[in-house]
Order: sequence, then structure tokens, then C-alpha cells
Amino acid sequence: ESVPRLREVPRLPPDTTRESFDRAIVELRDSLGAENVVLNDKPLEDGWYIEHPNTHDAFHIVDQEELVCSAVVYPESTAEVQSIVKWANKHMIPIYPISMGRNVGYGGSAPRVPGSVVIDLGKRMNKILKIDAENASCVVEPGVSYFALYEEIQRRKLPLWIDTPDLGGGSVLGNATDRGVGYTPYGDHFANHCGMEVVLPNGELLRTGMGAMPGKNGADNPTWQSFQPAYGPYSDGIFSQSNFGIVCQMGFWLMPETGHQSYMITFPHDNDFANIVEIIRPLAQQRILGNIPQLRHVIQELSVTGLPKSHWFPGPGRVPRDVVRKHASSLPCGDCAWVFYGTQYGDPASIKTQLDMIKSAFSKIHGSRFFLPSDLPPDHYIHSRAAVCSGVPVLRELDWLNWVPNAAHLFFSPITPTRGEDAKIVHDINVRLHKKYGFDLFPTLCVAGREMHYIANIIYDRSSQDEKRRATALMRDLITEAAKEGYGEYRTHLLFADQVAGTYNWNNNALMRFNETLKDALDPNGILAPGRNGIWPKNFRGKGWQL
Amino acid sequence: ESVPRLREVPRLPPDTTRESFDRAIVELRDSLGAENVVLNDKPLEDGWYIEHPNTHDAFHIVDQEELVCSAVVYPESTAEVQSIVKWANKHMIPIYPISMGRNVGYGGSAPRVPGSVVIDLGKRMNKILKIDAENASCVVEPGVSYFALYEEIQRRKLPLWIDTPDLGGGSVLGNATDRGVGYTPYGDHFANHCGMEVVLPNGELLRTGMGAMPGKNGADNPTWQSFQPAYGPYSDGIFSQSNFGIVCQMGFWLMPETGHQSYMITFPHDNDFANIVEIIRPLAQQRILGNIPQLRHVIQELSVTGLPKSHWFPGPGRVPRDVVRKHASSLPCGDCAWVFYGTQYGDPASIKTQLDMIKSAFSKIHGSRFFLPSDLPPDHYIHSRAAVCSGVPVLRELDWLNWVPNAAHLFFSPITPTRGEDAKIVHDINVRLHKKYGFDLFPTLCVAGREMHYIANIIYDRSSQDEKRRATALMRDLITEAAKEGYGEYRTHLLFADQVAGTYNWNNNALMRFNETLKDALDPNGILAPGRNGIWPKNFRGKGWQL
Ligand SMILES: Cc1cc2nc3c(=O)[nH]c(=O)nc-3n(C[C@H](O)[C@H](O)[C@H](O)COP(=O)(O)OP(=O)(O)OC[C@H]3O[C@@H](n4cnc5c(N)ncnc54)[C@H](O)[C@@H]3O)c2cc1C
Ligand SMILES: Cc1cc2nc3c(=O)[nH]c(=O)nc-3n(C[C@H](O)[C@H](O)[C@H](O)COP(=O)(O)OP(=O)(O)OC[C@H]3O[C@@H](n4cnc5c(N)ncnc54)[C@H](O)[C@@H]3O)c2cc1C
Repeated sequence: ESVPRLREVPRLPPDTTRESFDRAIVELRDSLGAENVVLNDKPLEDGWYIEHPNTHDAFHIVDQEELVCSAVVYPESTAEVQSIVKWANKHMIPIYPISMGRNVGYGGSAPRVPGSVVIDLGKRMNKILKIDAENASCVVEPGVSYFALYEEIQRRKLPLWIDTPDLGGGSVLGNATDRGVGYTPYGDHFANHCGMEVVLPNGELLRTGMGAMPGKNGADNPTWQSFQPAYGPYSDGIFSQSNFGIVCQMGFWLMPETGHQSYMITFPHDNDFANIVEIIRPLAQQRILGNIPQLRHVIQELSVTGLPKSHWFPGPGRVPRDVVRKHASSLPCGDCAWVFYGTQYGDPASIKTQLDMIKSAFSKIHGSRFFLPSDLPPDHYIHSRAAVCSGVPVLRELDWLNWVPNAAHLFFSPITPTRGEDAKIVHDINVRLHKKYGFDLFPTLCVAGREMHYIANIIYDRSSQDEKRRATALMRDLITEAAKEGYGEYRTHLLFADQVAGTYNWNNNALMRFNETLKDALDPNGILAPGRNGIWPKNFRGKGWQL
Repeated sequence: ESVPRLREVPRLPPDTTRESFDRAIVELRDSLGAENVVLNDKPLEDGWYIEHPNTHDAFHIVDQEELVCSAVVYPESTAEVQSIVKWANKHMIPIYPISMGRNVGYGGSAPRVPGSVVIDLGKRMNKILKIDAENASCVVEPGVSYFALYEEIQRRKLPLWIDTPDLGGGSVLGNATDRGVGYTPYGDHFANHCGMEVVLPNGELLRTGMGAMPGKNGADNPTWQSFQPAYGPYSDGIFSQSNFGIVCQMGFWLMPETGHQSYMITFPHDNDFANIVEIIRPLAQQRILGNIPQLRHVIQELSVTGLPKSHWFPGPGRVPRDVVRKHASSLPCGDCAWVFYGTQYGDPASIKTQLDMIKSAFSKIHGSRFFLPSDLPPDHYIHSRAAVCSGVPVLRELDWLNWVPNAAHLFFSPITPTRGEDAKIVHDINVRLHKKYGFDLFPTLCVAGREMHYIANIIYDRSSQDEKRRATALMRDLITEAAKEGYGEYRTHLLFADQVAGTYNWNNNALMRFNETLKDALDPNGILAPGRNGIWPKNFRGKGWQL
């Protein structure tokens, strides 16, 4: 849908006059080429996942025109990124880097400060710089998607897997920088990166890890993608979920291909939840579970078919539990409450041994049922999970988007220990507050041996002011109530960054003071992504920017 | 041996008069109790591993009196650490924190800047604060040794393993902070930590990870030892191998106990080396090798017996290769060149499958021989490796210390890709330079799937000025020549920190400028461990401190 702009365009950066903005843009165009600096002055189009906008948040939860940039720039090289950063420092214009901008549910490609200049790195910096089959690693630029990396590996016929999130259209580098997750044994994307090239907020260029040592005759260091921390402070972590640098290259480890077997286990009762978590913990800690399995509520078996809510339930409001039950009964999963998707890895004999242990462990829950993909129809969702869990990027998860008209996603993503008791507290808060605000609860739990990501997917109609207001209120309450019990989010939408950062306030906000100290040292002019992850540079602090 | 001090005692901090130093010490004693502030004014004793000094580097490679502190303080609590840091800022006296000070081969407990006040954290802050059997984790203070943690777990009869370095007397927290390694699947100590409590150089107290969110009713956060990065910049890494903070508590993951089987494989020829590395790589990448195995040269089979060099070879200088050969022939390993120590984990069936694959892979090297511990005599070194590789701390590795009289260790620790070609370049440099400077070459290679730590243990007689000089020259040459080929160290002795840091000089020392920016922001007075890892605060820069 294309909506005419109501406000003056383009939206100016804060404290910038139109004249000085125009002058700055002329200068930028001179240096990058006019076609690579595009003003955001046309109607905003939400598009869809594949044709997503880089002008604003396609999944807007405030006014569509609220979180907009003033312009988008398309650098071609690291050197051009450096010159954009220097330009921003000169003109004191905030810049906001994105790799591909498919951060749907967390802000898309919108900048936190309206009127910032978005640096769309991915459009022209999209090269796979290296695939090292011996070292099982690669180096990519920001514009390399999971699909692109996957296809190149297939083309070269290498026995390597990538690890992909549920949707394969994102940026390998961008997702890792935001500490996203996937589902093979290499699912912790940031933990499986090795080496970065980063433009600092002052325009300087840094290589982290072994990349900080020149290779022979000026080559890249031969160990750059082999060893993460190198010598001295290991600083890569501070470039994730931060506004301390612009990552222009990043190395990743690739997994040697192996055998795999996905499966699904169903559990009959809503209150089996805590027991399921208790059974997963030792299996995961002992690495019998080979990857990060997902646990979902049965309502998701309805939504992943791609059929809208209206198909299942014509009424307004939430789908009643007994309606879900009735429909589930006629789906392959049957009348159940929880659905567990796992995958085992290795040779057939080890997979068999593992599956025997897993079946026996879960059999303690009365009424649990075990399915292999071959037990399920060819259009069942499990085949898409099996793909993702063996490193094949898919788009199937997009089917969720059909649940309501004009559907948009907003993720509530707290972490709990993998312990029934803790998980239940967070789940109960979700149940209660989703009910209060009238949203179906879609929890996807990515369960590791010690912690689980509890991802609640709030799906709302972005054409409805009322739904947006309720979705926002639900998020705010969820964050507050979880924090009261000691549970915090690992990631959040731009607009809730301040609130979430504010819950990490031990010792009178020691962490935020520390982050601000680093920010001010690295970005004295406060030009790089102000407000991202709740970190405001000193020129923005105390001026009402926090939400 | 106790040597009378030749210089004035205690050695004063730089730019500090005796009067102001004395006044500062009086103040410190008032606040901590006189018995907890001890001047370093008595004769220096090198002691031995268990009774190691905290006054200087017991394995001195310069004059024993060179790397000395002015005083040692013993805080009892984090609050006392904070007050020491504030005291240091007030008096501009450099402080140097150690956990247990058994960093032998890398500087022991010596401060980089002579006359610094050493904070010996471990003596009184030695509590195991928590062992969570469900979460398989613990929280420790700096003074908890591998032995102490191991014993407490045995006492509580928990089915958990610790991971220990070759020597069990070190600090769990201190070793991890220096990014040390062990040999179970949890061998990367820093990667297996979860959450820190850190006193910053300005005296502020920070909790990293989920610890930055208060738990319910002021308790510790329930997810602190479950999830590493939490929300926002993941900053733990910059507190490792740095001088940006004093770690007062640290969480660690413990491994669920499992079956295990150690073994030894010998290879006949010196030039099998590159092939061995090539065979290890895929085995390690595919996680068929369950831990970080060690590859050693056959000469180490002689030294780990604990018998001195003179027992094997009465002559001066290096033990000739044919003398090693002759003795090896009568040892269990036989006449071979390389010895590989591995361990497999899991149930007996999987261990058998793994071992079959490993034997078949290595059988490609003609003349390789496979041994189980049961094939070897009860006093063979393999039994100590089997202990270490199943989480049991030992002291056996100390036997090396008998090689020469007054033996001291100095480690040269470059990283190479796990690739025969790269490993061979570094090995050849070692062979050539050890020969040039007249030292036996003792390489221990910790080989992972993508990188290997090549640890060369230079053993010298610390009573010989000539050996010290040669050991130093050997180190300097090794660092320079390896760097020329693009290989860098992961860790080094205090005195070579500047040189090693200087090799990570890509883009005109961008990394060091970045580290200095952080240092100046966090430690404006430059009081915390100046010079550690080559990072000098601004008040020390350009004053000739770099070596
Ligand atoms: C149905 C559905 C399923 C999803 N499943 C998953 C999932 O399984 N796992 C998962 O992790 N996410 C998931 N997401 C969320 C999101 O779509 C992905 O994380 C996606 O990969 C992020 O977008 P991107 O890769 O294009 O990153 P970008 O949008 O390019 O980057 C994300 C953010 O990181 C920062 N950033 C990016 N690049 C740089 C850079 N070079 N330098 C500095 N900062 C940078 C920016 O702040 C940017 O906003 C899902 C979303 C939906 C709607
Ligand atoms: C024969 C032999 C075998 C060895 N094998 C191994 C091995 O297998 N693996 C291995 O890793 N090492 C090995 N070492 C090296 C060394 O002995 C160990 O690493 C040892 O654990 C380090 O001493 P420590 O634990 O007492 O740490 P400490 O000496 O207490 O700490 C090491 C350094 O870290 C810093 N530090 C410590 N605590 C803090 C803190 N709380 N806050 C801020 N900074 C801090 C200080 O700079 C300190 O000098 C070996 C040494 C020898 C001689």
C-alpha cells in the first residue's frame, strides 16, 4: 500500500535546518554520486518481506511516518562508508547503518532518530569475499543474504552448511550483529563469527581478532577466520547490539555437512509446559539434543498453514482455546497443547541412539506422541523446519503473516533459565497479558541447555490504530512485569529499546553509565545510530529522547 | 632460594616520593587493617609452584629484583577492592590485580610496572559463591583454584566436571580472565564463562550479562549464569587480557559428567608433522575429536618422566636428536617423533565408533601406533592426561621443571590455522631459532578444528645470566619472525607484551589506538595495570615504558 505523506518531506535530522541539510546532501552526492544518495520524500510503501522498504519500519507500531529517515545512501566500499561517517561528523547528522533491513519485528530498517540518514550497506556491498573450504569459513559483506550464501556454496559443491534463521532473506552479517539465532548446531550466530572489519564512529578502520595483524606481504591474516580473540582485549562483542561501529566485513564459521533427522513431538496438556522444559534441560546440557529445538503452542500449527484467523474462527478477538482444540484435532498434530520440533545430527547409528534416548525421556509425559517427517503430509510445516535445521534457507515462516489483515509482527523476547519454574512464570505473564490486551499468544521457545529464548510473536493489524495501541501497551506491560520477576529481553524493537535497557539497571544503572562512557569515547559527536539499544550519546541525553 | 635485596626497598611506584608513598600506605592500612597491606621489603624467594611468591616473577627472565611490587594488599570483599581502586586514583599509584598469581611462564604475579601495588585477590576472596547443579554452573571468587572447585563438587557428589589446565593450582577466574585453556570439551575457559562482577578503574561496580538486571527482591538475576550476552553491547570480552577492570566474581559453566577414553598415538617421523595436522583438521571440525587434543614432540616423553636432562644426556647444550631417539626406543612410546594425546567422550558405543574413525584416519600415516592407557605402565604420563581430560586437576606437569637446574618456563604461544602448511612454517621457525639459541624445543600443540595453539616451552636455568639472555633473545626473534609470516601470539609474558601488541599493527596500529581510547575513557588516571597486554594509559605513553 502506498500512502501519501502528510508531513513535510524529507523529515529533517534533529537540530538541522533545511538549508544546511540540503547543502550537506549536495556534498554527499558529489562524493558518492547522485544516484547513491536518495531523499526519502516519496510516498511510503510497506511492501512485503522480499520487497521491503529502507525508508521506514514496514511493521509500524506508531504512525507510519514517525520512524522515517531523511535519506538513504548506498556506499560501494568500506572507503565510502568511512567518507560517509566523516561527512556525518562534519555536519553533525545522525546516520543509521543497516545491512539488509529485514529486521522485521524489531524495527525493520527504520532509524531510531527520525530524519537520520540510513546507510543501506547491503545494496552495493554484497560480495561473498571468501569461502575457505578447508577452514570451513567465509567472509561476507553486509548485503549477503542467507539465500545468496547458500546458493554459492551449492554452486561450488562444497560439503558445508550455513546456519539460517527461520527466514532466509536476512543478512548473514546484519543478523549476527544484532545477535540473531538459527537452528543448526551453529545457531548462535555471533558466537560463530570470526573476525570483523569495522568503521569506527570517527571514520577510522579497525580489524578485530587476528585481522589486526597484517598477513605476509600485506595479505589478510591467515588466521583471521580461524581464531576469534587474538591478543589483548577481545572487543568484537561491543560491536554487537550497539552503536559503536559499522561492520563492513565479517567472518563466519560454516558447519561441515552431516546426516540429520528432524522430528516432532506433541504433548497433550497446556500444563505439560514446565515438565517439557525440565526434560529438555538435561538432554540439551548433555548435548543429546544436537541443536536448539523449538517448542511451540498448538495454535501455531494453525497459523503456519498460512490460513488466516478468519478461516479458523470468524468471531472478533482471540481464538478461543476450544476452537483451537477442535481444529487441531483434524490436523496431523491432533488435539494437543505443545509441539516440539527437534533435529538430530550425525551418522544413522548415532541418530538412532539419540532418538531412543529422547523418546524415552519425553515418554514420561503421558500422551506425548512422536512423529517423523515421513509420518506427516508433504505440505506439513515440519519439512520447512527440517530444511532450516539442516542449513537450507526458506521463506515458509512468512505464512504467519496472513493471520490478520495487514499483519505486522512485534517480538517480545525474554530469556529465562531452562527451568520449568522460571519458564512458567514468564509464560503465565504472557498468557495473562495477551488475554488482557486481546491478542492470540504465539510463543516460540528456542530451548538450549541453560537458557531459553521465549519469543512471543504479537501479530497485529497495522491499519488499525487500536490494535497498534494495544500491541504497544501489551509490550510495555510484558517488559515491566517480566523485569519485576528478574527476566530480561535479549533483543527488542527500536521503540522499546529504552525501556528494555532501563531494566538492566543493577547498581543504579552501572551498565548504562559504562555503555555511555564507551559511546562518548568512541563517538564524541554522537552521530552513529543514537538511541540504538538505548544508548544515547551525550548530545542527545537529557533532551527527552528516551521513550 | 632466598636472595638478599640489593636495591632500596620497597621499590617505589614511578613518580612517587618515599614520603607520599609512606603516607598512602598508612592510609591504606587504616582502611584495610595493617595485616592486609604488606610491604615488599624482605628478601625475594622464588619458592615453587605451590608456595609461589606474590612479590615478583618467580620465573624471572630479567633480574629477580626488576619486576617487583612495592606492596601487596589483600582485600576481603568487592567493597574493599573498590576502596583500593579509589585509593589508587587518589594517590596516582598503579595497582596490579592477580587472582592467584600462578601465571608461570607469562609473568607469574609480577606487575608490569615495578613498584606497583599488587592486589592479591585470591588470598581472602576465595569463596565458591554458588554451585547450581541444575544449571550446571558455578560462581567463584578469584581465589578459587581448580583443586578447590573440584573438591567441593566431589564433596557434594554432583555429576559435574570442571575443566582444568595442565596444572590444577591456578585460579579458575584468573586463568579465564587471561583466556587460558583446558582439555575437556569445555576447554575454552573464557568462552565457557557466564557473567562477571567487575570493579572498574574508577571504582564503580559493574555486573555484565544478565547480572545487570536485578533479580526479584534484590536477589542475583536468575539467568546470570545461563545466558552470556544479555541485551546491548556484549562487553565481557574487553575485560579479558586487558587492564579495563578487576574481576571480582565470575560465573562458569560446568560440564555434565560423561564416559571418556583417553589414548595416545605415536608417529615415526619428524616430517609427519604437517600430515598429522591435516588429518586432525577434519576430525576436529566434524567434532569426531571431542576435545582439544595435544600433539607433542617425543622429547617431551623424556621430560615428563621428571628426570633431568642430565639423566638423558650429560653433555652441554641441546639433547641431540639421536640421543632422544635412543632413549625413546626404551620408553613405552618407542622410537617415534610425535605423540598425540586424545580423549573421546560419551557412552561406550559412541566412543568405539569415534575411535574406529580416528584410528582409520591416522592409519594413513605409515608406522603410527595406537595405545590405550591400559597398554601403558601405571606411571606413564598418559594417566595424568586422562585425568586432566576428564576434569581432574593434577600437578604432574610440574615434573618438567626438573629438566635443568633452577628451571623456569617461558612460553612462546603463536596461533596458526589448523593447516599443515601454516603449522609447518611456525614449527620450522621454532626449530631453527631454538637451535640457534641452544635450547631444546618442547612444542605442545593444542589443536582445534580451525586453529591451533602452538605452545613452545622454553626452559632455562634462571640462575644463569647467559641462559636468561639467550631465552629473551630467542623469544624476541620468535615473535618477530612469526609475525613476518603473519602468525601472532594469543598470550605472552609481561615483558614481551609490547612487542607482541606491536605486531597487531594493521592499518597503522588501529587496534592499539582503539584500545588506548577505551583505556583513557575507563581509566583516566591510568592506575590499573599500566602496560598489561601492551596497553599504556596516557600518563605513561611516550615516556619510554615500552619494551
Ligand atoms: C516470521 C519471522 C521469523 C523470524 N525468525 C527469526 C529467527 O529465527 N532468528 C532471528 O534471529 N530473527 C528472526 N526474525 C527477525 C528478523 O527477521 C531477522 O533477525 C533478520 O535476519 C534481521 O534482518 P537483517 O538480517 O536484514 O538485519 P538488518 O536489519 O540489516 O540488521 C539488524 C540491525 O542490526 C544493526 N546492523 C545491521 N548491520 C549492521 C552493520 N553492518 N553495522 C552495524 N550495525 C548493523 C542495525 O541496527 C540493524 O537495524 C524473524 C522475523 C519474522 C517476521
Ligand atoms: C607446566 C605448565 C603448564 C601449564 N599449562 C597451562 C594450560 O594447560 N593452560 C593454561 O591456560 N595455562 C597453562 N599454564 C600457564 C599458567 O600456569 C596458567 O594459565 C595459570 O592458571 C595462570 O595462573 P592463575 O590461574 O593463578 O592466574 P593469575 O596469575 O591470577 O592471573 C593471570 C593474569 O590475569 C590477570 N588477572 C587475574 N585475575 C584478574 C582479575 N580478577 N581481574 C583482572 N585481571 C586479572 C592478571 O594480569 C594476571 O597476571 C601452564 C604453566 C606451566 C608452567
